[in-house]
Amino acid sequence: MQFTAQQIGILLNGSVDGNPDVTVNQLAKIEEAQEGSLSFLANPKYEQFIYHTNASIVIVSNDFIPTAPITSTLIRVENAYTAFSVLLHHYNTFKLAKTGIEQPCFIHPSAKIGADVYIGAFVYIGADVVIGDNAKIYPQVYIGDNASVGSGTTLFPGVKVYYDSRIGSNVTIHSGAIIGSDGFGFAPLEDGSYSKISQIGNVIIEDNVEIGSNTCIDRATMGSTLIKKGVKLDNLIQIAHNVEINTNAVIASQTGISGSTKIGEQSIIGGQVGIVGHITIAKGSQIQAQSGVNRSILEENKKWAGSPATSFNNQMRAQVIYNRLPELERKVEELERKLKEFTK
Amino acid sequence: MQFTAQQIGILLNGSVDGNPDVTVNQLAKIEEAQEGSLSFLANPKYEQFIYHTNASIVIVSNDFIPTAPITSTLIRVENAYTAFSVLLHHYNTFKLAKTGIEQPCFIHPSAKIGADVYIGAFVYIGADVVIGDNAKIYPQVYIGDNASVGSGTTLFPGVKVYYDSRIGSNVTIHSGAIIGSDGFGFAPLEDGSYSKISQIGNVIIEDNVEIGSNTCIDRATMGSTLIKKGVKLDNLIQIAHNVEINTNAVIASQTGISGSTKIGEQSIIGGQVGIVGHITIAKGSQIQAQSGVNRSILEENKKWAGSPATSFNNQMRAQVIYNRLPELERKVEELERKLKEFTK
Amino acid sequence: MQFTAQQIGILLNGSVDGNPDVTVNQLAKIEEAQEGSLSFLANPKYEQFIYHTNASIVIVSNDFIPTAPITSTLIRVENAYTAFSVLLHHYNTFKLAKTGIEQPCFIHPSAKIGADVYIGAFVYIGADVVIGDNAKIYPQVYIGDNASVGSGTTLFPGVKVYYDSRIGSNVTIHSGAIIGSDGFGFAPLEDGSYSKISQIGNVIIEDNVEIGSNTCIDRATMGSTLIKKGVKLDNLIQIAHNVEINTNAVIASQTGISGSTKIGEQSIIGGQVGIVGHITIAKGSQIQAQSGVNRSILEENKKWAGSPATSFNNQMRAQVIYNRLPELERKVEELERKLKEFTK
Repeated sequence: MQFTAQQIGILLNGSVDGNPDVTVNQLAKIEEAQEGSLSFLANPKYEQFIYHTNASIVIVSNDFIPTAPITSTLIRVENAYTAFSVLLHHYNTFKLAKTGIEQPCFIHPSAKIGADVYIGAFVYIGADVVIGDNAKIYPQVYIGDNASVGSGTTLFPGVKVYYDSRIGSNVTIHSGAIIGSDGFGFAPLEDGSYSKISQIGNVIIEDNVEIGSNTCIDRATMGSTLIKKGVKLDNLIQIAHNVEINTNAVIASQTGISGSTKIGEQSIIGGQVGIVGHITIAKGSQIQAQSGVNRSILEENKKWAGSPATSFNNQMRAQVIYNRLPELERKVEELERKLKEFTK
Repeated sequence: MQFTAQQIGILLNGSVDGNPDVTVNQLAKIEEAQEGSLSFLANPKYEQFIYHTNASIVIVSNDFIPTAPITSTLIRVENAYTAFSVLLHHYNTFKLAKTGIEQPCFIHPSAKIGADVYIGAFVYIGADVVIGDNAKIYPQVYIGDNASVGSGTTLFPGVKVYYDSRIGSNVTIHSGAIIGSDGFGFAPLEDGSYSKISQIGNVIIEDNVEIGSNTCIDRATMGSTLIKKGVKLDNLIQIAHNVEINTNAVIASQTGISGSTKIGEQSIIGGQVGIVGHITIAKGSQIQAQSGVNRSILEENKKWAGSPATSFNNQMRAQVIYNRLPELERKVEELERKLKEFTK
Repeated sequence: MQFTAQQIGILLNGSVDGNPDVTVNQLAKIEEAQEGSLSFLANPKYEQFIYHTNASIVIVSNDFIPTAPITSTLIRVENAYTAFSVLLHHYNTFKLAKTGIEQPCFIHPSAKIGADVYIGAFVYIGADVVIGDNAKIYPQVYIGDNASVGSGTTLFPGVKVYYDSRIGSNVTIHSGAIIGSDGFGFAPLEDGSYSKISQIGNVIIEDNVEIGSNTCIDRATMGSTLIKKGVKLDNLIQIAHNVEINTNAVIASQTGISGSTKIGEQSIIGGQVGIVGHITIAKGSQIQAQSGVNRSILEENKKWAGSPATSFNNQMRAQVIYNRLPELERKVEELERKLKEFTK
């Protein structure tokens, strides 16, 4: 992969300022760039680096005026950050381009496989599975009977999709994520043991969802556990049975959401948050990392923190005083002493 | 899978009230049921739905008396919920019925494989492994040398069982769970680096245990990490080396238990709990989600909460006051001011 | 595997006190040892057990003087614990010795495989991958294009290594760990959805690192996520994009470290800790389990606790008072009452 400044200028609809024939073969941060690298300058705080960088090409905004000599070739565009993001995306798409079916893999004769897919070695595709066009199923993925995977979806190595799961289009699921394992449901028996409640529902994941590594999404007891359009889940998250996560909610790593809870659209939930079962979190809620939410949040677009969670502002005040508790206790003891003395 | 009301009535030892020839091919909640669904009414709160449901068949209790016309065929039984649970179980057993050995898989010639097992493609079974009758080993499972798996046990896709592990009968382990990886043991050396303490023990999992997706159970340094009969573990749990979890304990998702700790039988531990190493948790303890337990709990059948955990009742009171800390601090400052004024 | 006391004495450079021909075939704790076991006595607290143990051989220190008859054969060495650790290590190395390439596996023709490696069945090795000598790649491991694995490194079953990752020598990675999946980066769009920021960096893991089961290490957005020499990570840990963990840091299970944060060398971090992004933790910091660190720690070699974390000592005092909050509130109310009465 090697490109000239001229080629990149055309791709980005930008103008080349410097040697149009210089070539690059990698992307790098401006402060770390080596010869042969393409970089960008968007944040004025980093301007100093452009005068010393080894980057062969730097993307800058049209209105950038150097205050010292620059050895790199510049490509001037309307928005340097956006242009660089576009390049990143092209680079990655090119790098991850794969098609074809590697052997050995196991594809049940009743499965329907779309056009231009990639299916890696040691993939297992069960009975009646449907795989959409352009899907990428990396090695060692398992797709259980009667599950479906939409077009343009990528399942990275080792993803496990249990039977009956429905995965939409342009979904990305990272390695080790488990979709559709049994919800945690048991009924106590008289002898102290537990009887399993069969989990016969499924998981539905809508379009444009991304799911991180080793995240677990349990199938519903009945009905569906639902991950709606545009939701982004980080790594090592637990989504219990019958949970519903609404459009464009974003959840950071190691958070756990208990059974039947509904998360409102456009919510932003930090890492290591715990949310109890059977509650509703209003649209646009923002929940700080490590919070514990133990009842429904009904008001939209509010910030929450703490365990049990209360309003973010209240929590910030309480935390400050918590750290001063030894001082507060001393004050109370002093008051008690003084009052006693005084009333003698 | 299609059944008539008459067939289901016979299976459940119930009486058919309506058309005995109507057929169903799925199970559904009464409020979501479509034509062709079988549903149930157990909780009187849901009675309203039975007069409008599209379910073709509804299981009800013998003593149910409708207060309006019902179009569904009813099947009357002694306990509607229990009867429906039995159906769920039959449905799932039927759905997950699999036998035979798929190719390619790797079975070491010295392994002993029981009768009527299912072994999926890409399964690896090491030397001297013993697999009991009717076990189901799904695709991409790994079973290391000298491990054993009891009869009727199910290992879902991608479970990894390290060498020497012993897994009992009628155990269910979900995808991505890791049984028997090394405990976290290192001895500090003088140069600041660490020397690994070899972990030569194993993991023993007794009968009727269920283990959730991506849960990790470390092998013992010496001896065994022990998961006793009837224990239920949710997803993403960490069980460290030499831990002992006693009969019928239930542990929710993302909880971590440190080395050599013993969890009493019939304990119930919430999600995201942390328990330090080398302590004992008494029988029947109930520990609230997100607690941190840093010393042994000796009294049986008590509730605990908080980090560090104290009695549930004390914690509930302290939490309420914690949220009022700003107010408490203001009161103390007011007292100080008044007292000062008064003593001027 | 059966050894005589004489053979073990020679191996450990110790002297045999008792029957040199007695044989052992397993290692066990002195209090649990059966006939045929080899055990050790290092801690004087356990001395009582040596007079009743069934161990055939016990390793003791040169200066051990029995105060009652012992039936076991003794092997006297300079340091009984160190000698036993050496035996554990030999035992385990012997037990885990594997070489050769099992079939079926997938090795891209462009991959370079070192000498004396073990490659298990169902392993996937992508284009341009380099595997060092004596590496052990267990079944169902995935190594993406252009990744490298150093000599003497062990990847246990099911580890997934994404493209471009660099793994050093004598590294151990346990089952289910995911190296190099995408960092969690999305830019909000005007319609409320998110646009993915392509993650084109990689992960670099230096020599002598150990990584636990189901731990996730994300690739950098650009540049590298860096795990330096001698770092030890437990199970189910989340390491976000562009994090840097310095030499010999040790991190316990279920901890999460957010993007671009730097952890100082020789730090010790407990379980279930959360650390926010873009901060620096000073060398030698010790952070208690379940802490939440929300700003840089600049002073070296200090202990921290709580969420948000403050100094360990402050936190211990605050925790004690937290548990006395109901009492403190009562005192304040009492003071208010008294003062009111008094000023009437």
